[in-house]
Amino acid sequence: MTMNRAVFIPGPIGAVEDPTTILRALIFSSDLSFLMEAHDGLSAAIATQAGFKGLWASGLSISSALGYRDANEASWTEVVDVVERMADASGLPILVDGESGFGNFNNARLLAMKLLQHGGAGVCLEDKAFPKRNSFVGDHHPLVDIDEFSGRLKAIKDTTGDDLLLVARIEALIAGYSLDEALRRADAYADAGADAILIHSRKSDADEILAFAKEWQTLPIVIVPTKYYRTPVSAYRDAGISTVIWANHAMRAAVAGMRAVCARIAAEESIAGVEPEVATLDEVFRLLGYDELAAAEDRYLPKH
Amino acid sequence: MTMNRAVFIPGPIGAVEDPTTILRALIFSSDLSFLMEAHDGLSAAIATQAGFKGLWASGLSISSALGYRDANEASWTEVVDVVERMADASGLPILVDGESGFGNFNNARLLAMKLLQHGGAGVCLEDKAFPKRNSFVGDHHPLVDIDEFSGRLKAIKDTTGDDLLLVARIEALIAGYSLDEALRRADAYADAGADAILIHSRKSDADEILAFAKEWQTLPIVIVPTKYYRTPVSAYRDAGISTVIWANHAMRAAVAGMRAVCARIAAEESIAGVEPEVATLDEVFRLLGYDELAAAEDRYLPKH
Amino acid sequence: MTMNRAVFIPGPIGAVEDPTTILRALIFSSDLSFLMEAHDGLSAAIATQAGFKGLWASGLSISSALGYRDANEASWTEVVDVVERMADASGLPILVDGESGFGNFNNARLLAMKLLQHGGAGVCLEDKAFPKRNSFVGDHHPLVDIDEFSGRLKAIKDTTGDDLLLVARIEALIAGYSLDEALRRADAYADAGADAILIHSRKSDADEILAFAKEWQTLPIVIVPTKYYRTPVSAYRDAGISTVIWANHAMRAAVAGMRAVCARIAAEESIAGVEPEVATLDEVFRLLGYDELAAAEDRYLPKH
Amino acid sequence: MTMNRAVFIPGPIGAVEDPTTILRALIFSSDLSFLMEAHDGLSAAIATQAGFKGLWASGLSISSALGYRDANEASWTEVVDVVERMADASGLPILVDGESGFGNFNNARLLAMKLLQHGGAGVCLEDKAFPKRNSFVGDHHPLVDIDEFSGRLKAIKDTTGDDLLLVARIEALIAGYSLDEALRRADAYADAGADAILIHSRKSDADEILAFAKEWQTLPIVIVPTKYYRTPVSAYRDAGISTVIWANHAMRAAVAGMRAVCARIAAEESIAGVEPEVATLDEVFRLLGYDELAAAEDRYLPKH
Repeated sequence: MTMNRAVFIPGPIGAVEDPTTILRALIFSSDLSFLMEAHDGLSAAIATQAGFKGLWASGLSISSALGYRDANEASWTEVVDVVERMADASGLPILVDGESGFGNFNNARLLAMKLLQHGGAGVCLEDKAFPKRNSFVGDHHPLVDIDEFSGRLKAIKDTTGDDLLLVARIEALIAGYSLDEALRRADAYADAGADAILIHSRKSDADEILAFAKEWQTLPIVIVPTKYYRTPVSAYRDAGISTVIWANHAMRAAVAGMRAVCARIAAEESIAGVEPEVATLDEVFRLLGYDELAAAEDRYLPKH
Repeated sequence: MTMNRAVFIPGPIGAVEDPTTILRALIFSSDLSFLMEAHDGLSAAIATQAGFKGLWASGLSISSALGYRDANEASWTEVVDVVERMADASGLPILVDGESGFGNFNNARLLAMKLLQHGGAGVCLEDKAFPKRNSFVGDHHPLVDIDEFSGRLKAIKDTTGDDLLLVARIEALIAGYSLDEALRRADAYADAGADAILIHSRKSDADEILAFAKEWQTLPIVIVPTKYYRTPVSAYRDAGISTVIWANHAMRAAVAGMRAVCARIAAEESIAGVEPEVATLDEVFRLLGYDELAAAEDRYLPKH
Repeated sequence: MTMNRAVFIPGPIGAVEDPTTILRALIFSSDLSFLMEAHDGLSAAIATQAGFKGLWASGLSISSALGYRDANEASWTEVVDVVERMADASGLPILVDGESGFGNFNNARLLAMKLLQHGGAGVCLEDKAFPKRNSFVGDHHPLVDIDEFSGRLKAIKDTTGDDLLLVARIEALIAGYSLDEALRRADAYADAGADAILIHSRKSDADEILAFAKEWQTLPIVIVPTKYYRTPVSAYRDAGISTVIWANHAMRAAVAGMRAVCARIAAEESIAGVEPEVATLDEVFRLLGYDELAAAEDRYLPKH
Repeated sequence: MTMNRAVFIPGPIGAVEDPTTILRALIFSSDLSFLMEAHDGLSAAIATQAGFKGLWASGLSISSALGYRDANEASWTEVVDVVERMADASGLPILVDGESGFGNFNNARLLAMKLLQHGGAGVCLEDKAFPKRNSFVGDHHPLVDIDEFSGRLKAIKDTTGDDLLLVARIEALIAGYSLDEALRRADAYADAGADAILIHSRKSDADEILAFAKEWQTLPIVIVPTKYYRTPVSAYRDAGISTVIWANHAMRAAVAGMRAVCARIAAEESIAGVEPEVATLDEVFRLLGYDELAAAEDRYLPKH
């Protein structure tokens, strides 16, 4: 049932050797690791250039880039297509926001298999129903049954094995459940085959995250400090957290950048003023490997 | 051979009535019009919010967002998919960079037909061969034969009629040909059914553009002052230019914004510092119509 | 919120005027109508050539053609893409098997909106949960709550209005519920805005279908006699049934044809024997309008 | 620049180990091998069931299934998507009709890289210009310059190495050129890195094919006896031909099967008559692995 093959991906940046191994090393290293959000090929290339070692393919950001709401409006194949563009443009390992798996265990394992094939290094599955609502919008998001969710995790693990990192995301705290419920779910998801646990919180401080980390050390812990951004990372290092995801800041930076430039161009009826504030075309060409294309034209096009 | 139907597109922003009519009004109005580049749903929504009345779906920007080089690496169906997301997220009329038509007259008319169906209001076809090279990269881009290109234009016009605005883009000046050659092509393309002419230049001043506009008034003239950005738009108003395209500045603004934020997060190992510089999630939610979704949940989900 | 535009779709067969109007006329005509299953562009062209006036885009058949199981493995955008190919190749009105809507009301209305844009004339939504299981595989398919499902129907109706025909499919009888439950649901779905009701049965005779039709005449009734195929259509005419869907027979004919030819070629190591049994290339070219392409090459390609 | 990873593809039929190695073994074996055309997931599953060891992803057949003409109307990404569905549904090695590469060397290598990622085991590139015309339609198909085409082959080889089998297809004989021209091209393409040569002919006998095979033994020779189908395969065995492609017979069998069944259903207004002639649903379910899904539901769904 295994297909073992070498895949060349000579993307503009230069592809890596086995992204899943690299992602695993990041997640399991004793030092704190960071994943930067990206949502298309361009943002992935920029995060690579900035020195990040791994990417977070955010469901919210990908939805937003596509002009969808973060409510599973984007189809699962649309998400897979975006991940492929990110992988090709970056060469970095990508942990993909797999939402709740886009259905039941069968949809979840199909998603995982396809993410692996299309350039993902890991998938993060959250214990919510489909279609999901964004964790930061509204309240009362019902959690799914532990057994049902564990079935999804097992199905993924049996399908992609160690070739795809499997992160189980616990929404219990966000949904207003107790720390005990979160811990109970962490145990169950570890038993089901998760490689790491993402514990999510929407509080403005990290207390419940740190309490979780103090109580539970079975697997590496991944966090998303979007709401509790003021906590210094030293607190996470001290708490033995594995990985921090900067979850949507590239997308939000793009929005801010585009908003300001659009407004100014509209007001000034000119691009002269914004010229120093936007990237040059040459920078874009460097980001996306135009030099490789020029060299290849020299090599492969007839000289006449 | 005609299918006449009403299509509801209740996108997050609110769809417009007949984008092609609006685009035609912009191009044919006596006042100078502006089209803002966008390359995905999000950038399209931002340009809408900034008050632009029409969008330019730039091939360079769309390629870049996808992580491709601007050398027809993106397939024509990938471009059509992006345009659909832009249309849904903005409700604005979109003039689409149709490159050279992705092949011969048959590919060009298939592209035009699909752009119309998927949300485009106009297509701009340039007189180059497929695959093209970016106009700003390298020299010696050969132009295609006038008759062959006129055949492409006619094929589009016969297929989409007045339902899709057809802009013929002349690359003669960029390719080093004379003003006479550009004028000769403009006449031929007008005869072939173009609704407007885009005259392109890579010079740092607008002299050759203004010379063209002085000599030729058969159809509305569209320009792209990316390289000659210092010329004030009053010069275009005086010259009777129809429309200015700000061709890639949303994409370049996004790159600049993401580059700065990625670099700072990488350096500071924190998002606290960039928080004031990035858009809030609430702003993203407003841009993409989350309030409409919340209202719809109230309306359509059972109350229990 | 409305976009009213003329869309030219000069497909190989020749597109129709307003497929939804034609589909509505078929469904509301006093005579019995027939929809033939198709699952890709080729089968749609063949059904057109055979004289059918409308098509059924079967979820089972489309899934099968794609190599997926009929369990919502295909994403909703993959289904929409297939419908577009069918519409372009046939020019016929297509009633699309919308499954359960691929999620909640929001997914359902997004699907409907996109089906309309991509060539569908109607959508049929069934009162099951997502992901669904094929109606003919296994038992115990739970039905969804009437109110929840009615919300999906209302959301579609509010989005696509009269531009897309809305058929509500009742799975009550198949799921082992009573005729009363089916009638109760029919009333509710009519109230919610359905244009017609598809009443489904897996019995080998039409008794429960005819009983339903005798009791309920509020809206046109659509049936799928896959299992009770022996009942003559005169019984449906007598019962005032509106429309019969031949639900998967093009796909099953293709399987039978390919199975026989593949087996024979494998056994004989030759195609000489099967040559009289397969369609000629010229027939394929006629089906797909190669003459139109040849004529267009004469018209649009330079003569040299 | 290499990414080496294990990819699990647990498709319904059961995936193979390294399809490229299997395809290479077929092409390089001393015995005559056969590739059966398929054009979607379903036809690929049927060819597998019939015992074929490898598939031919025909451009003509894939175009036809999609309702396109065989003139590069289908985009290159649409073709890649179809190949992925074929690979998943069959588990067989697939030699993909790469047409002329969908552009220049850069498009060709991008296509090759993506075919490898998406399930292809080999790509066959033909020495024609883009967009191509079907070899069996019309005359006067110009060949491309040998150097230009060799550049495309080299670019593919440098990108995908031994991970993707590269077959160079010579159209010289079909285009009316001499055997010498075909031999000259074969030599050049072998030098450029082709693993095998496909020599194409539209004559009704195999004389020119056999003449070529007699003169040229540098690489394995692949043939497509669509027009000269009467020649017994013993002649190819005697001539040392490597591989025979049955190039479009699954598609043509599907057309014949669907045509007959559609016509009969239309005439009889009943499916009772065709029921014995079409495949049963159970056969379709077996073809596509529904038993695997049922077993997985037992394993992964909660028991309640």
